[in-house]
Amino acid sequence: MCVLGLGLIGGSVMRAAAAAGREVFGYNRSVEAVQAATFDGFDATANLDKALARAAADDALIVLAVPMPALGLMLGHIRAAAANCALTDVISVKGAVLREVEMYGLLERFVGGHPMAGTAHSGWAAGSVDLFVGAPWVVSVDDHVDAGVWTQVAQLALDCHAVVVPARSDEHDAAAAAISHLPHLFAETMAEIAGEVPLAYALAAGSFRDGTRVAGSAPDLVRAMCEANAAQLLPALDRGIELLTRARAALADTGSVAELVESGHAARMRYDSFARPDIIATVVGDENWRDELAAAGRAGGVIRSALPVLGSRG
Amino acid sequence: MCVLGLGLIGGSVMRAAAAAGREVFGYNRSVEAVQAATFDGFDATANLDKALARAAADDALIVLAVPMPALGLMLGHIRAAAANCALTDVISVKGAVLREVEMYGLLERFVGGHPMAGTAHSGWAAGSVDLFVGAPWVVSVDDHVDAGVWTQVAQLALDCHAVVVPARSDEHDAAAAAISHLPHLFAETMAEIAGEVPLAYALAAGSFRDGTRVAGSAPDLVRAMCEANAAQLLPALDRGIELLTRARAALADTGSVAELVESGHAARMRYDSFARPDIIATVVGDENWRDELAAAGRAGGVIRSALPVLGSRG
Repeated sequence: MCVLGLGLIGGSVMRAAAAAGREVFGYNRSVEAVQAATFDGFDATANLDKALARAAADDALIVLAVPMPALGLMLGHIRAAAANCALTDVISVKGAVLREVEMYGLLERFVGGHPMAGTAHSGWAAGSVDLFVGAPWVVSVDDHVDAGVWTQVAQLALDCHAVVVPARSDEHDAAAAAISHLPHLFAETMAEIAGEVPLAYALAAGSFRDGTRVAGSAPDLVRAMCEANAAQLLPALDRGIELLTRARAALADTGSVAELVESGHAARMRYDSFARPDIIATVVGDENWRDELAAAGRAGGVIRSALPVLGSRG
Repeated sequence: MCVLGLGLIGGSVMRAAAAAGREVFGYNRSVEAVQAATFDGFDATANLDKALARAAADDALIVLAVPMPALGLMLGHIRAAAANCALTDVISVKGAVLREVEMYGLLERFVGGHPMAGTAHSGWAAGSVDLFVGAPWVVSVDDHVDAGVWTQVAQLALDCHAVVVPARSDEHDAAAAAISHLPHLFAETMAEIAGEVPLAYALAAGSFRDGTRVAGSAPDLVRAMCEANAAQLLPALDRGIELLTRARAALADTGSVAELVESGHAARMRYDSFARPDIIATVVGDENWRDELAAAGRAGGVIRSALPVLGSRG
């Protein structure tokens, strides 16, 4: 298995996969991260050609763990040196990654992934072997995906002790807009408004601190996430503006915010009691397996141990 | 000292004031709370006439700790039985309380208060002697306030181990809209939008849970806060809608959310480094003492020990 990019996420994948007994090697652009990983006992290089030649020779699974802006460059090298390897990624926006992979002609052996884990820190040193324990790890079930590659990627997530959530890339991105990208913009908005009101910082307590916590994230990272997912974030923003505008009108006209407060509270209660049943009945590679898994994931289902596999090709 | 209402806040004031060595008695409408307080060794009654007669005889400071809808009834009884007592409150919206107090002709001896503390629970049993330790406790410095009463109310806050933030009622309410009421409506909105997007609950992690935490609050309490503060919440909502609409347009037109993300991040960083100097130079009752204290509070200043007092009347 070959990890390209040894930052927080890639470095944690390397540690967790090695701890599960897998043979793992990795590449990173900066020599410092390579030295740190090597010092910690891992097999890392700053020589991309060498890493990809080895991946091709071993028929290794390649994990793309580079920032979005570096993706195209990396895909070009993979096409040239390791086009037949199974390929996945751990980048946060799935539609944009899918389009780049298709552009480089690597779609056939690609299955997108997204472990829903992270910390406020970055770089090799911030990684840890247990970053993914119990976390949802999305493994894409888009129309093109191959059952054999899908199984390899799902097994990697399970080896990292994550739970697999099967999902279509576009649905993943719509959900990410609702639960992460929109909340980031809301937090920035609340922080800015408080900054404009005298006395607000003086009176702010726990609920403001929690509610604006993610506004402390590095602006470049927030922008990269939100801007790469504009297609899904725009309708979420529209809906947010619509709900707030309706609540504003109700407060001005009738003195009541009952509608928003009651529906928001009910939604939060449903979230608190959201069930995560095991997905067990589907056979990977069987007729309609992708649609079955997408529907099960949408309903909250997760995969906690390997599913049966019909064949190596879907 | 007489506490009217022995719920979470009133019950905690009673405990903290008694622990500071003050003579405290209290009233509550429900016999259950009175029995619980009595069982815990406090002097409590369900007989309002008796409590107010004793307050009048002792010239006690009366603390209004009833829910907003019960305020008018309580003020009517105070006017009839204890109109000369010094009066404060611990209700969250200051402008609405001030207007009711004025309507009942009790403004002269009234100084509004708001301890910025609470928990998700309510009732006598949820209270605790250390609920206010280190918390900001707003003590109003509106134009009408009497220096002698102000000093009594500030001393109560200090006895409860809070830090006193002097503030005008309208400025308090504008700040509360920015740091509490608007964040509640934003949390409700985020929870509702996630509830409408398939897969969103399935992928939601820590940042969504924290960002929508306050949507778990009882809808009646959220409505009471927001609706009583409509005058200040409406402009905060307008500003929120304006910022989000501008970010939406920038994302659609230029693919960038840089402006909002960078200004929100900068505002959150300023909040993290916000200083709380001690207010020490003002003499309560001196010329311009109210304006001086309001300006110092607005700038982040707090009172951690009693200020010098010029006279008993401002």
